Amino acid sequence: MDKKLNQGAGEILKRVREKRPLLHHITNFVVMNDTANVTLHVGALPVMAHAREEMKEMTGIANALVLNIGTLSKEWIESMFIAGRKANSMRIPIILDPVGAGATKLRSSTSLELLSKLEIAVLRGNHGEIGAVAGAGGKVKGVESVEGIKDPVKVAQSLAKKYKTVVVITGKRDIVSSGKETYFVDNGDQWLSTNTGTGCMSTTMVAAFCAVEKNYAFASSAALACYGYAAEIAAKNAKGPASFKIALLDTLYNMSPSQLAKGAKIYAA
Amino acid sequence: MDKKLNQGAGEILKRVREKRPLLHHITNFVVMNDTANVTLHVGALPVMAHAREEMKEMTGIANALVLNIGTLSKEWIESMFIAGRKANSMRIPIILDPVGAGATKLRSSTSLELLSKLEIAVLRGNHGEIGAVAGAGGKVKGVESVEGIKDPVKVAQSLAKKYKTVVVITGKRDIVSSGKETYFVDNGDQWLSTNTGTGCMSTTMVAAFCAVEKNYAFASSAALACYGYAAEIAAKNAKGPASFKIALLDTLYNMSPSQLAKGAKIYAA
Amino acid sequence: MDKKLNQGAGEILKRVREKRPLLHHITNFVVMNDTANVTLHVGALPVMAHAREEMKEMTGIANALVLNIGTLSKEWIESMFIAGRKANSMRIPIILDPVGAGATKLRSSTSLELLSKLEIAVLRGNHGEIGAVAGAGGKVKGVESVEGIKDPVKVAQSLAKKYKTVVVITGKRDIVSSGKETYFVDNGDQWLSTNTGTGCMSTTMVAAFCAVEKNYAFASSAALACYGYAAEIAAKNAKGPASFKIALLDTLYNMSPSQLAKGAKIYAA
Repeated sequence: MDKKLNQGAGEILKRVREKRPLLHHITNFVVMNDTANVTLHVGALPVMAHAREEMKEMTGIANALVLNIGTLSKEWIESMFIAGRKANSMRIPIILDPVGAGATKLRSSTSLELLSKLEIAVLRGNHGEIGAVAGAGGKVKGVESVEGIKDPVKVAQSLAKKYKTVVVITGKRDIVSSGKETYFVDNGDQWLSTNTGTGCMSTTMVAAFCAVEKNYAFASSAALACYGYAAEIAAKNAKGPASFKIALLDTLYNMSPSQLAKGAKIYAA
Repeated sequence: MDKKLNQGAGEILKRVREKRPLLHHITNFVVMNDTANVTLHVGALPVMAHAREEMKEMTGIANALVLNIGTLSKEWIESMFIAGRKANSMRIPIILDPVGAGATKLRSSTSLELLSKLEIAVLRGNHGEIGAVAGAGGKVKGVESVEGIKDPVKVAQSLAKKYKTVVVITGKRDIVSSGKETYFVDNGDQWLSTNTGTGCMSTTMVAAFCAVEKNYAFASSAALACYGYAAEIAAKNAKGPASFKIALLDTLYNMSPSQLAKGAKIYAA
Repeated sequence: MDKKLNQGAGEILKRVREKRPLLHHITNFVVMNDTANVTLHVGALPVMAHAREEMKEMTGIANALVLNIGTLSKEWIESMFIAGRKANSMRIPIILDPVGAGATKLRSSTSLELLSKLEIAVLRGNHGEIGAVAGAGGKVKGVESVEGIKDPVKVAQSLAKKYKTVVVITGKRDIVSSGKETYFVDNGDQWLSTNTGTGCMSTTMVAAFCAVEKNYAFASSAALACYGYAAEIAAKNAKGPASFKIALLDTLYNMSPSQLAKGAKIYAA
């Protein structure tokens, strides 16, 4: 655990709250409410919009773009590309969440197409999803990872190099790699896995932090530390998954930069 | 604060619970669950439906229609017009929530088109949205108001006259005007701004009250007083935005007409 | 109350947790988050997907299919048939929730078409919806049942025979019939009716139990007992509908097979 890194995490959180970046989400129906709330609670501003007619304009006022393929359809893929190209032209970060990659060809091929044709700042998935995108094994059942990949750190590093992106694999220990830099984040709690959408929420956290910090690998690590540490605190009084989620959202809102600097568990590899 | 007005608010709430009006929502994906629950908790019945094929029939059994443009698309705009024309032919109130007007041309122009081509009973938005619709300044970032309008009372009054509607601007002090009558509502709590969809929920409240009271300006004021007063009570034990929201929904359900008559802060201008 | 039946209910719950069946939902926007969470809490795995392009493949890895028509559209009906035919070819159960049948022709005719052209394992609705499907009276207002049917047990039995399916009518006393076997379940609490989507959640419960037990009538009864008994426990400390819902979800997660065997109230007719 590196004190400077943890301090840095707190400083990025502070910046999110000062700048209130706008996060344009094209995301799935299941998590829209939760991810909009996470956006607000961490200090950023959310907008959920998918109509082709307003994509350029909406992304045009945003500070980061989230592309989440959880409840995909052809029309939405089109909108993702319009928004993505606009984001690239503005040099704002795109965070891609390949929900369920590996479960169907549509999800796997859409993930790869978005990665190939757009400059993706951060790719965030669970072991199964990243394994599927990398062709490295792992297994998803629906949208849940049910089998890990063999050497996740190497997979993250080589996938990051291949697509010039930052790869984030969330799990018991989160792995973040730009290909050059690699970080581990040991915050988190197993209650997270009992709720739907907790992966998608972590993607939103990454977007908020990357909107105000250009070192996307470190910004992602800081975001995951903030989210995971909030989960640790929330777990203390949880009676079940639903009361845990309420506490998680409350805690995110109440998390101070100095508190985060103390509780973060970020390591440079 | 006018005792008669507050008493009147309690009486409308009582009527909602007796008549159980059906509120047909064509609304955004982010808030569908919350607004359906608010509908039930206040004593009305919800239905969320958007398919062109069933629009006339579904609006045909409703007592009020909510049009909310938060996650707009071309197909849904078509359905809004079909439902809107049916509502007008039945003389049931349409409540329009121009979510994100000002953020994109699609949202601004759709709001204006709905206002021009349909008879809208109540237009409910935040300062930025109403400013955009009125061409009177104000600013939204995504769907959040980040800058007020200069003279909101005058803007509300003149916009109400122009479109023969009731204009509601929600904020620290809510402004309600039919052009002739103007009301202020001072209930509410700042926790409301920490959750997504709290504006949309207030629109649903307005729909429930307008479904049973033809004086739409007063019905809207009563609805906002009920919602804002519930927020005040809920704020007392809130530890964060999520526990606040749970308490808000519980409190709405438990609010009695006599309690509302005591806690409402409605003023005639 | 039959001890053996209750014991059996506990055993099915145990099997759900061991096998973790994947439930493919094509469901409405209002309840997607809640039903995904109920799926996880009871021990199964959720996936929400509707794109025609991935239907066969997604259903192809599932252990049960939920078709819920709550926010229907033409495109989604197509996807329901593709997924449904795949499910039938795999011999996995389809659970149909005819939300709002009776409210519009689209909903009534789609329900009947799905029932006629697919082999539906279980049809689950409230009194108004099942009455509409059976042509036996009952009344829905939007999506809420506001009037019962005259002889619900007979309606369930004859509808079950007609479509070779299991019919479930949920209400104060739940009725489950395969035409041959008929069960009653007396678990439940009136707080359930104060939240939107509680019927849809019960459908998800039925899907989880039918995914691991081929006697669909008994599996459905066991699922409803589990859900209803969780509601009874959650009701004890509820201050309103929202805190009740949190407690319901927590309780479902914490429900043990032996606890269910003690609390279930299943009767054979």
